[in-house]
Amino acid sequence: MIENIDHIAIAVSDLESALERFMALTGIAPGNIRIEEVPSEKVRVAFIPLGGSKIELLEPMGNDSPIGKFLQKRGEGLHHIALETADIEAETSRAAAEGLQPISPPSTGAGNKKIVFFNPKDTNRVLVEFVQKL
Amino acid sequence: MIENIDHIAIAVSDLESALERFMALTGIAPGNIRIEEVPSEKVRVAFIPLGGSKIELLEPMGNDSPIGKFLQKRGEGLHHIALETADIEAETSRAAAEGLQPISPPSTGAGNKKIVFFNPKDTNRVLVEFVQKL
Repeated sequence: MIENIDHIAIAVSDLESALERFMALTGIAPGNIRIEEVPSEKVRVAFIPLGGSKIELLEPMGNDSPIGKFLQKRGEGLHHIALETADIEAETSRAAAEGLQPISPPSTGAGNKKIVFFNPKDTNRVLVEFVQKL
Repeated sequence: MIENIDHIAIAVSDLESALERFMALTGIAPGNIRIEEVPSEKVRVAFIPLGGSKIELLEPMGNDSPIGKFLQKRGEGLHHIALETADIEAETSRAAAEGLQPISPPSTGAGNKKIVFFNPKDTNRVLVEFVQKL
């Protein structure tokens, strides 16, 4: 079962200035923000908590990273959405049985959580991630 | 105070087929889906509840509608994010004081809720909506 929207991810070229904008927008205090590097995805991430969900700002670590390539092709903006489940393997199998295939095997993302991405061609050009609830 | 992510909105050309895909993705049963027309925005909306948040699929009612124009220019995909607050006027004023201006006066959106949109130029090309909590 999908239980929640875990996060909305936004690709940005400069994490600190984007964070300033989104803090101004949401009024979230600096003490609630967490910044993390995810070397496996070559990305620096700022987490802005909003209720049970969050906005994640993604800054590429290098132009050859997935986010670096996205920025070169499409510019800044909404990048993907992540849906939270307590059983990522069961949910991935269920979705696959419905014809929605992961584009890569499960890996480890931000916050050391297990993640899977699906092919945006199957979901109206929206990149969707499943995230294992810890 | 921004309390939650109210929804993530996705522009689609055919609501019924998109809904089928997203129901397959999330496993949400048909009985939980609500479909509504919002004539003021010239849009048909399907709501997919996910925990305290939701995915909204937006189908244009006519090519001259905001979503119709978006589809012609950029194709299907992520369209905007909506943040929920108990006091939309206070939050809009607070954000405006930080330099983030609404692009239009407050209006009434889906679910008869008061909404405001901000200029995406101020938020890294992400269209952000504030939604009054009912």
